[in-house]
Parts: sequence; C-alpha cells; structure tokens
Amino acid sequence: MKYHIPKGFKFAGVHCGIKRKRKDLGIIYSLSSCNAAGVFTKNIVKAAPLIYNMKILERNPNDIRAIIVNSGIANACTGKKGLENTFEMANETALNLKVSAENVLVASTGVIGTQLPMQKIKAGIMKAIDSLEENPSNFAFSIMTTDKIPKISSTKIELGEKVINLLGIAKGSGMIHPNMATMLSFILTDANISPENLKKLLKKSVDETYNMIDVDGDTSTNDMVIILANGSSETPEILPGTELYNEFFEALNHINAELAKTIVKDGEGATKLIEAKVINAPTKEDAKKIVRTVVSSNLVKTAIYGGDANWGRIVAAAGYSGANFDYEKMALYIGNIEEAIKVFDNGTECPFDEEHAKKILSNDCISLLLDLKQGEASARAWGSDLTEKYVEINGRYRT
Amino acid sequence: MKYHIPKGFKFAGVHCGIKRKRKDLGIIYSLSSCNAAGVFTKNIVKAAPLIYNMKILERNPNDIRAIIVNSGIANACTGKKGLENTFEMANETALNLKVSAENVLVASTGVIGTQLPMQKIKAGIMKAIDSLEENPSNFAFSIMTTDKIPKISSTKIELGEKVINLLGIAKGSGMIHPNMATMLSFILTDANISPENLKKLLKKSVDETYNMIDVDGDTSTNDMVIILANGSSETPEILPGTELYNEFFEALNHINAELAKTIVKDGEGATKLIEAKVINAPTKEDAKKIVRTVVSSNLVKTAIYGGDANWGRIVAAAGYSGANFDYEKMALYIGNIEEAIKVFDNGTECPFDEEHAKKILSNDCISLLLDLKQGEASARAWGSDLTEKYVEINGRYRT
Repeated sequence: MKYHIPKGFKFAGVHCGIKRKRKDLGIIYSLSSCNAAGVFTKNIVKAAPLIYNMKILERNPNDIRAIIVNSGIANACTGKKGLENTFEMANETALNLKVSAENVLVASTGVIGTQLPMQKIKAGIMKAIDSLEENPSNFAFSIMTTDKIPKISSTKIELGEKVINLLGIAKGSGMIHPNMATMLSFILTDANISPENLKKLLKKSVDETYNMIDVDGDTSTNDMVIILANGSSETPEILPGTELYNEFFEALNHINAELAKTIVKDGEGATKLIEAKVINAPTKEDAKKIVRTVVSSNLVKTAIYGGDANWGRIVAAAGYSGANFDYEKMALYIGNIEEAIKVFDNGTECPFDEEHAKKILSNDCISLLLDLKQGEASARAWGSDLTEKYVEINGRYRT
Repeated sequence: MKYHIPKGFKFAGVHCGIKRKRKDLGIIYSLSSCNAAGVFTKNIVKAAPLIYNMKILERNPNDIRAIIVNSGIANACTGKKGLENTFEMANETALNLKVSAENVLVASTGVIGTQLPMQKIKAGIMKAIDSLEENPSNFAFSIMTTDKIPKISSTKIELGEKVINLLGIAKGSGMIHPNMATMLSFILTDANISPENLKKLLKKSVDETYNMIDVDGDTSTNDMVIILANGSSETPEILPGTELYNEFFEALNHINAELAKTIVKDGEGATKLIEAKVINAPTKEDAKKIVRTVVSSNLVKTAIYGGDANWGRIVAAAGYSGANFDYEKMALYIGNIEEAIKVFDNGTECPFDEEHAKKILSNDCISLLLDLKQGEASARAWGSDLTEKYVEINGRYRT
C-alpha cells in the first residue's frame, strides 16, 4: 500500500533479541526538530517511559528528533532501575544520532515487571539507526506484541502546490496475556503547527477516537499517543480560527479513528466490530457515557458474538451507564443505515423479523444506533465482541 | 439443612406455566403486619415491579403482609401494560389473602421485553396460597432462573429466653442469557424494628455485600433487596446506639455476605470465587474502588481462571480504578492467610515460588490482599472468574 509519508521522517524496525524471532525494536527519526505533544494513560501505575516522556515534553516540546520503541517488555513496575533503563535507551539513541537525550522520546510495550535486557537493546539501537528508511512498514511490525496485523493510516491536505502529509502508526489488541501493554500510537506530520495547538487538537481527537474504544475494559500502564510535526511541508503555520486548522483536525481525527477501529478489529479473539452511535442526547457527556457502556458490556459483546438481536441487554447497558435520560423516549436500531431494523421504541419492543436480524448480525461490523429523541448531542464508540477465544488467550499460563 | 425461620412467616413455591416445567411462582406471607424497607437497582431502566414497590414502601412501610414473585419473565421494558400487570399480581394476591393490594410487594425476574401471562399467574397465585408452608425451600427454588442452586442463609440472636431469627433467600447468577434479570434477595426477621432503622441498616449492609460482588459488571433492570420485620419474636425494639442494634446489623450483614458470595460462586460458567481485600487505604472510597475494579477486571478474572499468578494485571487494575494512592507503597499477597505469598512490593515484583503459586491458585476460592500501607481504611469484594463457559452461555441464541 502507498502511504502519504510526511517529508523529513525516516523509520526502522529490527530484531534485537527481546523476542525470540520477531522484530522488537523500532525508531522514528526526523531530519529536523519537531514540535511535539503527547497523551498518556490515566492509570496511576505508569510505566517508566511515560514518566520520562511527560517530563521531556514539558521541558522540550519544540525540539524532538526521535522516538525509540521496544516491544516484548513494558518496563512497567520496574522501579528506579526501570527509569534508568529508559534514560539509557534515550541516551544511546541520542549518541548514535548525534543529538541530545532531551531530543528523544521512549516507548515500551510488553510484559509488566521485567527489566529490559540493555545490552541487546543498545546493539539493536545501532542496528536500527543503520537501517533507517522511508518506508514505515518495518517500524510498524517492530512495535507489535499480540497484534495480528500492523496498523498504519495516512492522509494528506493539499494547499495549492504544497501538501501536508499525516501518517499514523499504532499497535494494540487489548491489554493482554502476558500483559502486553495496550496501545501505542505515533502520528507524524510535516505540518507547521505549535506544540500548544498540537496538544489541543491531539487531546480532542484522542477523546473522540482511542478513548471511545473497548476491547476488555482494562486500561494499560503504557498507553500513549505521541504527535510530531517537523514543518517540512513549508506550508503556513496552522492557527486556530482558520479553515486549515479545522481541516488539519479532521485529517488527524480520520487517522486516529482508522487506527482505533483497526485496534478493536484486531482485539483478542474478536470476530466482529461493534459500532455504537448515540444521537439526539441531552448532553455530549450523556451520549459518551451511553455508547461507551454499550460497547463495553460483556453481555452485549457476547450477544453480538452469538448473532443475537438481544435488545434488552443494550437498553439495560444504556440504563446503567450513569447517563441521565428518559429511556422510554429512546429508539434502538440494529444494522447499517440501508438495512437497519428498529427493535425498541416507546419503552418496549418493536416487532421485527428475526431472520432479517440474524442476517444483519452475521456481518463483520455491527452498527447500533440509539436515537434518544431528547436533545442534540451525539457520540460514537467502537468495541469488539467477546468470544471463547478471548478467554483462551487470556487464561493461558504466563510462562 | 435446618434454618432459623423467623416466627410468623410462611412460604410457597409452585409451577404456574411461565417456564416449561420448573417452579416459577413463589410467595412469602407474614401472619401479621411487617415493617419493611427495600434497596433497588440504580439502572434507570427499572422493571415495573420496582416502580410499584418503591411507591408502596414510600406510602406504606409499616404494613406489608406478602411478597409475590415470578421467575421466567422480568416484566421490564413492558410499558403501561407491564405496570398494570404488576398491580394485578399484587391485587390478586391480596384478594386471596384477604388483605389490601397496598400490603403486597411484587418481584419479577427473567426475560426483558415480554408481557406476563396473567391467566397462568392468577391461577398460580391461588395454588401458591393453598400450599403455604413453614419450609422456605420451595420458595427458594421458585425464584431461580439460571441459578444452579437455591440460595438460603439464616442466623439467630439469643436474648435471654427469647430469640430473634433472620432468614435470607436470594437468586442470581449474573445478568444472563436471555436477560434473566440479576439479583433478588428477601430478608425476613421476627425482630421489632422500625422501617426507618431497617432502611438504614439494609442500605449499609447492601453497600458492603451485594454492591461488592461482580459476575459480569452488568447491572440489571430488576435488582432488589427487600427486608420484612414482623416483630413476632416479642423482643424489645431495636434502637440505634444499643448493643442489640450492632448485633442485629452484624447478623443481617452476615446473611447478606453469605448470599452475595453464593451468587458469585453460582456465576455463569464460574469455577472460582475471587475474594479481594484492600487494607490500610487512605479512604474507604479508595479501598472500595480498588477492590471492586480488581474483581471486575476481565484480565484478572481470566488469569485466576487460568491459575496464573499474573500480579501485573491486579496492580494495573488497582491503578486504573480511579482510587488515589501511591502504588509503589502497596504490597500484594495471593492466597489465604496461612499460605499467602507476597508477589509485589515497593513498586516491583517479589521473587516467589511459581509452583507454590500454582498450588494456591488451584483452590476454589482465591484470596487477594492489597496492603496499601498509607492509611487505615479497608474494603472487601467478591468476583467470579471468567471462563469459556460464560461466553458459551451468553453467546447462545435467545430463542
């Protein structure tokens, strides 16, 4: 596949020996300084690289040159030694790239509680820097843990003869056995935009995308989303209140939504993607509570897995979401817009054709639409179904 | 088994035809007026009997004579007709018992969205009243849905030559396929205590017991706990500030904890009971958030199912619980007090014997102790493990 690669970025992904065979060390490098922003897990148990990155981005948000990432070990719950190892990863990368450790961000994903094999990682860093290339594929593979597929999305904005490119690379398939820490996402762009505006737009987009997906409800110690903008497109600075600002947000949001959905589709044991939408809710907050609770409910997940138009579970999940609404006004539709059937309205069941419902529920992607008919707010969220395979994957012994 | 049956109560459980073969209609009857209190689901989608009972208990909390219960159909999401049917159940029961409808509470559990077959229920009510007996077993069977075992617990308080008896009967095994609405619990006592004090003690006990269990995180439309006290023990009124008040609370709490644990053990597909305790937490609220999140985590549930001492998942769950604490001070123990092993302390793993851990995790009941070492508050919660069987039960087609 051809991607819209932002100018001035290079990538590498190599095997350094944390995993037995597969690639386990990756690097993103920018030829010039980047403005940067990040969003980090709300889990109070934060892995060492997150603590490190939060400090760097506070001190140095307009001079980032590289991100070094390992997979296989999360460097979480590793104490002082873990923090030292994170710093060493940044420093070793900086030395080889002839920049300062303050210019390097770090990410780790994998088993909790294990220390990193620093000799292997140091050798891997040299190897990775020697193999920097324009194609992000090897990098995308190197950050995978239990992911079955690499996750890349890109888009561009045309400005006369110039072009702004955006590229996102992510990993994640649930916080899984053996504690492969969930989600990493790196967004790269050659746009010209300040760290403050990057942060504002990233936060807003994360709330609408990665924060609206659920595989198993667990929040990892290592989740992070980083955006780097190096300005190499030589386009005007993107400023709030302009059309370009909105366009850039839409592009960023498109990439994040694509990556978020790919993570859910790749959920452990998942066979179906559930997309829930709430419309006409009293408030945005209520709309978000309802969609998130619906796609997170084990009972909804198993019903969708079983191809069961079990509307009672969806209505009950909306009811205990904590949202404040009158459920007797709500209508519930199952299926895409062309073929949707109404299963619930006015507080009770609508007669529907069970055969038609079965057909809709045999699709790979199941849409649920909750029309609250009591306001103007809306929200959408994505979840995976829950299968025997999920239990099998996560119930297997660690070692 | 011999129970401590409170004086002046009678029970019945019969088959009226909602289910194909098994008992599906039960009644609790008191020979004299009861003081009563109830706690109801927080789900805003409330089944008809809950709406009815809340009104009756507000108007008439010191003159309840009977509870009529059906299983198989939840009478939830059934609109106006559902409310009319609930009233008819109360009224029919009242007519046959020669009391008023205002003296009768109603409960339903089963499929959401279906109307009750009122002819069958009316015939069943007569049949039940004809077979009232001192033994609560038939009643306990008649309220079961997917429960594998009836759930009864009782205790007594001796006061010189007099005795106060407490008896609890519950049903519930997760909110399950096809939406068998979760949990009903009825506590009966011959104690002499006002509706206000009953309500206060019931609320407090529910918060420490039924509200601290998790099978699948879903909250049903029909959950309720009702307590009736008819004063037939002829003991002094139980008043706040007395030793008897505390003793009565302990007895009530003991019964509720027993029933709550039995519900979890009977959880769909469950093979193990997980008991989590937090001690030395900064606040009670923090302690509760942590234990509830730990026993609700799909990843902890599957690890326990797999016999895996996967402490990282437990620490991560505590971390995203929303509690405010320093996880690097926390120690985590797995196993009962006699055989417990410490697996985590000072922010990182403690070396432990994997064979010993495997042995502990092969038990039916797994204790987890989180010693936060930063305060004096504590809390406990119970959860079931998550198995392929759960997915199988809940993924099966409704009809």
